[in-house]
Amino acid sequence: MIAELADKARLAARTLIAASGAERQAALELIAKEILESASEILTANSKDMDAAKSSEMASSMQDRLLLTQDRIKGIADGAIQVSKLPNPLGKTVRESTLPNGLHLKQLTVPFGVVGMVYEARPNVTVDAAVILLMSGNAALLRGSSSAANSNEVLVNVMKRALAKTNISPEVLQLVPSDDRSTVQALLHARGKVDLVIPRGSAALIRTVVDDSTVPTIETGAGVCHVYVDVDADLAKALPITINSKCHRPSVCNAAETLLVHEKVADKFLPLALAELASAGVILNVDAKTNEIAKSIGIKVNLASESNWSTEYNALEMNIAVVPNLLAAADHIAKYGTKHTESIVTENQESAAKFISLSDSAAIMVNASTRFTDGEQMGFGAEIGISNQKLHARGPMGLEQMTTTTWIVTGTGQIRA
Amino acid sequence: MIAELADKARLAARTLIAASGAERQAALELIAKEILESASEILTANSKDMDAAKSSEMASSMQDRLLLTQDRIKGIADGAIQVSKLPNPLGKTVRESTLPNGLHLKQLTVPFGVVGMVYEARPNVTVDAAVILLMSGNAALLRGSSSAANSNEVLVNVMKRALAKTNISPEVLQLVPSDDRSTVQALLHARGKVDLVIPRGSAALIRTVVDDSTVPTIETGAGVCHVYVDVDADLAKALPITINSKCHRPSVCNAAETLLVHEKVADKFLPLALAELASAGVILNVDAKTNEIAKSIGIKVNLASESNWSTEYNALEMNIAVVPNLLAAADHIAKYGTKHTESIVTENQESAAKFISLSDSAAIMVNASTRFTDGEQMGFGAEIGISNQKLHARGPMGLEQMTTTTWIVTGTGQIRA
Repeated sequence: MIAELADKARLAARTLIAASGAERQAALELIAKEILESASEILTANSKDMDAAKSSEMASSMQDRLLLTQDRIKGIADGAIQVSKLPNPLGKTVRESTLPNGLHLKQLTVPFGVVGMVYEARPNVTVDAAVILLMSGNAALLRGSSSAANSNEVLVNVMKRALAKTNISPEVLQLVPSDDRSTVQALLHARGKVDLVIPRGSAALIRTVVDDSTVPTIETGAGVCHVYVDVDADLAKALPITINSKCHRPSVCNAAETLLVHEKVADKFLPLALAELASAGVILNVDAKTNEIAKSIGIKVNLASESNWSTEYNALEMNIAVVPNLLAAADHIAKYGTKHTESIVTENQESAAKFISLSDSAAIMVNASTRFTDGEQMGFGAEIGISNQKLHARGPMGLEQMTTTTWIVTGTGQIRA
Repeated sequence: MIAELADKARLAARTLIAASGAERQAALELIAKEILESASEILTANSKDMDAAKSSEMASSMQDRLLLTQDRIKGIADGAIQVSKLPNPLGKTVRESTLPNGLHLKQLTVPFGVVGMVYEARPNVTVDAAVILLMSGNAALLRGSSSAANSNEVLVNVMKRALAKTNISPEVLQLVPSDDRSTVQALLHARGKVDLVIPRGSAALIRTVVDDSTVPTIETGAGVCHVYVDVDADLAKALPITINSKCHRPSVCNAAETLLVHEKVADKFLPLALAELASAGVILNVDAKTNEIAKSIGIKVNLASESNWSTEYNALEMNIAVVPNLLAAADHIAKYGTKHTESIVTENQESAAKFISLSDSAAIMVNASTRFTDGEQMGFGAEIGISNQKLHARGPMGLEQMTTTTWIVTGTGQIRA
């Protein structure tokens, strides 16, 4: 069944490749228009999903992710418009050269072909992912959550209605049935039929996809990010960076989970940080030294257990440790981190360079919040996810990261001697 | 056990990252020198492997791959020197920009970290892969064939002796025991400990690695490559391109397995091609139309079975079919090919462009032999393999392809609003 959907999508993708950047842009504009005009239809379908969610007593945080509103629908349409305005990522020359034997080499950006998305409750991902994949010339197999089945079905139909008004075949979008988990397994094993699978959602979902898939996958998400306040830190920068990294949006992967503080500034910085974090309602799991300081100023903390240091809370909870030096901070990060984003606060350029060279993460911030590891914040215009693996793209993935390359070698009859 | 080797390698890799390009270059020169000076030691170890191979009646073609000679050892050393002369792929700025909020973004090339190689009989791969990985800043876990265990052990020790004379820790090279297959499985499941696994060898080996691995892998090899002779082909180019693509080195992945000929030139071209291929000793599996032509000029051929069209022979055997047009050729390639390399022979630029847009392969040749999909031929200086997947590098992989990137974001205290 997945094979059939993938074959349909691949054949239809020829119309996508044949379409110019301007035609793909126009298609995305039509999709945005169709979504706005179909708002009531979308809300009706979504309310069915919400009713089922309530009666199955889905967690309220999950219900919030599932919920669509007039505003959120406008946001989805605006997102499609934003992506339509981005530069065409296809047909770009990455490398070009002429060899001594006269062969002309050109490395060109091309789409992956058929990309599978496996994601959870949020129905907006259905459109967000689809428009990025369409704009980058890829057909999409969309496997959302069964809890959003009604919403996703309508959203895909709405997008297909828009595509039907273009030269791009609506079959480039395929909704993978979500009524049982076997469709995920089938998608993950459709090697040769599906070029790439991108999981978006919980650590558990991502783990399943990465472990089970024989189709190449890009691991996204998992972020145990660190803020290291160096001995040469400007504490006036360190405090807002710490608070922003933890509290600005705790539920996302680029939020910080652990604060590391150089022992020489701990007595000065930690009282300020502990007070602000506590007043922001952050649960604090700390080492012995931090515990002393907290006690001395009457702030309630817990002693951290070994497992705390490697836990991604996605909530207002943070670990704090005092370290003897920068190397110890780097070692802590190497031991407990997930290679996503680390931030060093220092006015010392050499220390920043040392921290960078000792880090093995997708992004390293110097005197900036960890929250900046984000496609829009980095100027990509949109992102389909944040790669937390080293193969292919690393960090935020926008249109460019949804392309691969091919070598075009043009000759006049050259053969190998 | 693999985890221990990987941890040792990762710690040692810090000395590799700390080393400048010049220091890594010097290390490779020392490795080449040490290999030449240790020739007799290497040959003695190799002869042990050869004796075992003979007594176990290993196929002679396999024995030839296992065999080392004075010349081959010189070739291995020369290869290391060649890689040492290539530009340093690390610390290159891929993208750089300053955002409106003053954040400075820099995407830098960095090593993967710890790379696992899984390969077969040829002991030269032990050095070829090691020097490319060292030059690109990566530690290497080398898992060769048990049949080459003695040769590989000595080769790794020789390279470690050379590294011992530098600031680079010899522990960046780890030979993975090959006495049983469990070490391959362990390597493929060392996610988090090993950053990347590259298989080199038979289709069966590559399949196992790709299917079993939870560590990101780059699929190499498998090449069912095609030569399409278009209606507008210059037959004076088409004939040598066909012969060279099939016969120059039949055992490798960029050799052609199938010749597709436009029906309008079949009567003119096929008699020439059939005669030359037959006289070169190529076994021919053909469609009905080609069979007629072959009969008419008394050349012995077999009627192709469905399975022939998707078989990589790695030998002097070729399929031939007549197609009604370019689209039919592209469809045949899409159905039976492995997306490695296809060549079109045509003087018609539009047809070439059409063929390129309909192809989904790592390399497309226009009026050139399929044999040019090769790192050295493309000017990479050396290659660790040819990627036949779309994720990360596609096509030949040299030093640059053995790097990933990281984002360095430098600010003055910026936080997310």
